[in-house]
Amino acid sequence: MARVYNFYAGPATLPLPVLEQIQKEFVDYRGTGLSLVETSHRSPEYDAVHNRAVGLVRELLQVPEGYSILLLGGGATMQFGMVPMNLTGGADTTPSVDLVLSGSWAKKAAADARKFATVHTIFDGSDGGFTALPDAGSVRSTAGASYLHITSNETIEGLQWKTFPRVEAPLVADMSSDIMSRPVPVSDFGLIYAGAQKNLGPAGVTVVIIRDDLLDRTPESVPAYLRYRTHADKNSLYNTPPVFPVWALSLVLEWIADEGGLGSVADRNRRKAAALYEAIDSSDGYYRCPVDAAYRSDMNVVFRLPDEEAEKRFVADAAERGMIGLKGHRSVGGIRASIYNAMPESGVEKLVAFMKDFRG
Amino acid sequence: MARVYNFYAGPATLPLPVLEQIQKEFVDYRGTGLSLVETSHRSPEYDAVHNRAVGLVRELLQVPEGYSILLLGGGATMQFGMVPMNLTGGADTTPSVDLVLSGSWAKKAAADARKFATVHTIFDGSDGGFTALPDAGSVRSTAGASYLHITSNETIEGLQWKTFPRVEAPLVADMSSDIMSRPVPVSDFGLIYAGAQKNLGPAGVTVVIIRDDLLDRTPESVPAYLRYRTHADKNSLYNTPPVFPVWALSLVLEWIADEGGLGSVADRNRRKAAALYEAIDSSDGYYRCPVDAAYRSDMNVVFRLPDEEAEKRFVADAAERGMIGLKGHRSVGGIRASIYNAMPESGVEKLVAFMKDFRG
Repeated sequence: MARVYNFYAGPATLPLPVLEQIQKEFVDYRGTGLSLVETSHRSPEYDAVHNRAVGLVRELLQVPEGYSILLLGGGATMQFGMVPMNLTGGADTTPSVDLVLSGSWAKKAAADARKFATVHTIFDGSDGGFTALPDAGSVRSTAGASYLHITSNETIEGLQWKTFPRVEAPLVADMSSDIMSRPVPVSDFGLIYAGAQKNLGPAGVTVVIIRDDLLDRTPESVPAYLRYRTHADKNSLYNTPPVFPVWALSLVLEWIADEGGLGSVADRNRRKAAALYEAIDSSDGYYRCPVDAAYRSDMNVVFRLPDEEAEKRFVADAAERGMIGLKGHRSVGGIRASIYNAMPESGVEKLVAFMKDFRG
Repeated sequence: MARVYNFYAGPATLPLPVLEQIQKEFVDYRGTGLSLVETSHRSPEYDAVHNRAVGLVRELLQVPEGYSILLLGGGATMQFGMVPMNLTGGADTTPSVDLVLSGSWAKKAAADARKFATVHTIFDGSDGGFTALPDAGSVRSTAGASYLHITSNETIEGLQWKTFPRVEAPLVADMSSDIMSRPVPVSDFGLIYAGAQKNLGPAGVTVVIIRDDLLDRTPESVPAYLRYRTHADKNSLYNTPPVFPVWALSLVLEWIADEGGLGSVADRNRRKAAALYEAIDSSDGYYRCPVDAAYRSDMNVVFRLPDEEAEKRFVADAAERGMIGLKGHRSVGGIRASIYNAMPESGVEKLVAFMKDFRG
């Protein structure tokens, strides 16, 4: 079948050249006589791929010296637990954590943090139905907090921080759904984590960027795999890494570099999002985006139609026209167009045209 | 290049038809117009793959009712921590764990278990340089032990349990390097775990088979991802699973079924191993296998040559002849031929012939 435009929230659309390269090299990797997924993780072939992935994370995000880059399994959901497990151990008193409750993913991070610390919700977006974020400049950490946690982009509610707080406590960010979609001042962060399956590649690998002084807070009681230090000391080769997801990650990062890097992709991402929000805002109220204009996500554009019946038809008609994955998350309903790096502008143009047609 | 015979210990050789099928379906999955690795884990396409993998684990291993099958990230190394984290919480007194110290992997399981419990080493193979296992019939658990842990196959030392103990405490087995290589009496076990990258598929997914009564021992303090219950309740779809590794797993399991199931592959595995041990034992001492004949692994055949110089030449000459990955683990040296399910008998025949030639 002809390639569709894939608006899934994650696993999400990937650059076609990356898929084609994997397909071409899949059975016989570069003349080695075997697949890379059959190759020892101690081999020079895998080593080159692994180091290219780590090196490109550093290069594209301009990660400064003094930060380690880790490639782990388990997804961002595992990081909800690993972060407090590793970072609350160094506090002198009962540990406390600051958290911006910005949406569904922040809620999950909060639930796990509560198992290790008192959680101060320094902003609670639930009263407004998660339609706004705090002003970044106004965010302060509380005294003695082990860290302050934010979610850079809420995939389900379609909210995104446009600038980041600068706070005294280490700033920890779940960037799963917008990492590598724009430049980020990494030195303002203590720890950044991101599951791969939106902007980085297929599911199965999680990128963690951690300031090295935070590696030594982990209590002795934490087992080997769950200690950031374990992986930092071994360049994420303490145990067998998820070879295929890392390979795909390395190719997606090469593709981003070829596209001109994060400045370039950010410009394109803003253009794509602006076109969709314009189509919503100029629809005389037929389409409605509930999110405060200052915090609308460039990655996940959420909107409603007059009723659920129309939304159902919208999703089905779009799919018939080769645009799939537009159904909003089951917890909130509505429509969600996820337009990560790999969504071409032509996909957004087609969706905008369809939106005009659909409302007639 | 022509396909090589790949004796890597893991990631390891995979069935060629599986690799070819993935290649063929990679960019456009069965006419959907997108890759499976770009497809939502909530889609019917992924759901079918996921359930086929889970269903085939149950069918091939004849997993009885009352056991849950989980597909997790993080590898067996993460299970070294997750097992005691989840299973030692139900003890009335200070928890204790029984463990058979059979080799390098058991040592790692022990190190993590010690963070949660007193570990009783009920057999210590280190004095003999890890060349033997205890008689399965003689193994008893100690009073009050939360579980008894064994490693069904020690990948590095080349040791394998031929029958399993039946003990009062729940029997927990790391089967990473021989799961699906033979039938196993699952009902004798409380929990079985296995990283995929030997007999199950590429790296990135871990299979856990857990008796349902063990799901409720986990203390409240354990975060969501690290609780077996989280995944059991959601058929391992609580969060995004490692889509590609699960897809490949489903195809490898289909291949095992097509090969006639575990009885068939076990017969072939025994023939392959016997041919290699015969080549070693009939070499007038040129090749030496240090492992007690009763516990020699059908998966990882380890042997030494007269000196390290000869071992180096052996590895290099074999590679020139299209047989790669024969170097023993860096911690023990020597030669290791890993001959998992997907290693064809022709590969072993070629290696045996080379061994005869090499010693001249």
